[in-house]
Amino acid sequence: MMQFGKIAVVGAGNVAYTLCKVLKNKEINPCCVYVRNASAAERMRQDLNVEVVSDYKKVLESDFLIIAVNDDAISEVASHLADYKGLAVHTSGTKPSEVLNGIERYGVFYPLQTMSKEREISFDDVPLLIYANSPEDLIRLHGFAKLLSSNVNYCDDEQRKAIHLSAVFVSNFTNVMLGVGDKLLKDNGLSLDVMRPLVMEMIQKSFDVSPEKALTGPAKRGDFATIQAHEEMLSNMPEELEIYKVLTNYIVENYREK
Amino acid sequence: MMQFGKIAVVGAGNVAYTLCKVLKNKEINPCCVYVRNASAAERMRQDLNVEVVSDYKKVLESDFLIIAVNDDAISEVASHLADYKGLAVHTSGTKPSEVLNGIERYGVFYPLQTMSKEREISFDDVPLLIYANSPEDLIRLHGFAKLLSSNVNYCDDEQRKAIHLSAVFVSNFTNVMLGVGDKLLKDNGLSLDVMRPLVMEMIQKSFDVSPEKALTGPAKRGDFATIQAHEEMLSNMPEELEIYKVLTNYIVENYREK
Repeated sequence: MMQFGKIAVVGAGNVAYTLCKVLKNKEINPCCVYVRNASAAERMRQDLNVEVVSDYKKVLESDFLIIAVNDDAISEVASHLADYKGLAVHTSGTKPSEVLNGIERYGVFYPLQTMSKEREISFDDVPLLIYANSPEDLIRLHGFAKLLSSNVNYCDDEQRKAIHLSAVFVSNFTNVMLGVGDKLLKDNGLSLDVMRPLVMEMIQKSFDVSPEKALTGPAKRGDFATIQAHEEMLSNMPEELEIYKVLTNYIVENYREK
Repeated sequence: MMQFGKIAVVGAGNVAYTLCKVLKNKEINPCCVYVRNASAAERMRQDLNVEVVSDYKKVLESDFLIIAVNDDAISEVASHLADYKGLAVHTSGTKPSEVLNGIERYGVFYPLQTMSKEREISFDDVPLLIYANSPEDLIRLHGFAKLLSSNVNYCDDEQRKAIHLSAVFVSNFTNVMLGVGDKLLKDNGLSLDVMRPLVMEMIQKSFDVSPEKALTGPAKRGDFATIQAHEEMLSNMPEELEIYKVLTNYIVENYREK
């Protein structure tokens, strides 16, 4: 990491933890990780063998700083960094880059992936969406990101906001659909596992051809007899019935076969 | 296929077509495929090199018959088969087995997968959900299904209905979520491809641990500032805004972190 010098990280959540692990796997050692919470600090230290600090002294001596904390904590972290001379980036999908504009050189390093401490994640194909407030730092940040992933893209604040909103639909809401499906199956003594090949194939197809072309089912066909039977089956589950109705109506209005 | 004798298929849609292809790949040759529509018949004949017929004479001579037609056409097909002596099964996720009770020996062979003529599908791990109106035929049907897939399960009409409804949520509605995400990205000059690693990881995680544990995002966290910002971004898309509100509310009510 000649061109970056010393890398510091702030945070101990899923993103900070995963990022440190990915860095270590690439034999890039953070010079320090700032962690406020004592038990989180201990876990970082034990699991990842990194130097964990609880004041900003060593952080301020770094050349590149990744602030991987909750959205609402970014400003507070930045308030300690007014004199920072390195490049400081945050990892948020929603916060504008300007939340760091009290620091001279700043940017964004947004890994578009869901992370948790328990799962092994490689960043090899994770989209890393980057922004910096100067062309020189953008190039530097790009060089760094390319060490971790083959999928690095420039992304301004507006695009990042759109991506984050889109991710709520394609990831969180998709997850909710699996949750409802799971509930319906469990009520009938069945397991969600039976759906795995169907879901995997449908998702692959959706990415390969397009969600619109991959869509099947009663609403797409305008099969109102089946829709009515489904609504009756859901009659004692008012919340799930509402979801069914809203999404069926959306398909009928937007995707129905002529 | 000693124990089955002659296998016939009725239909030329995605299920019939895929099924014939899967059978041919396993070197199981249908004795005939009944197809009403002339151009569909021609395609079946050319693509799959099967004997396509347009009357029921040869069908009635078979020992095992798979009726892979639209739900609404099953009764009409069955009306020609009152004298059938073999085992006749339909492939529908929604129709009761009794739609075939004008035939002496009947059942269901429901492959839980999305199919289209353009995609290569192996049935190796596709759940094949089977039912027959006699234990002897259930055993026969099980033996047949095991030739095509390692994932064969008994499933009565009630369970099959629950599975079909669940599939609407986990497959069709999930697909709609990808469609909305795609639209939001396109409006900002971006492609759905950027979401692929995130969606794949989230889906895997959801099946590996559970949808509930895999869920992340602003609604799960109760991050109402982000939710409000998202709703403002969707203010000129009333249909998508409604979906956002209904699903966010569902997460807040059912999955919100304490």
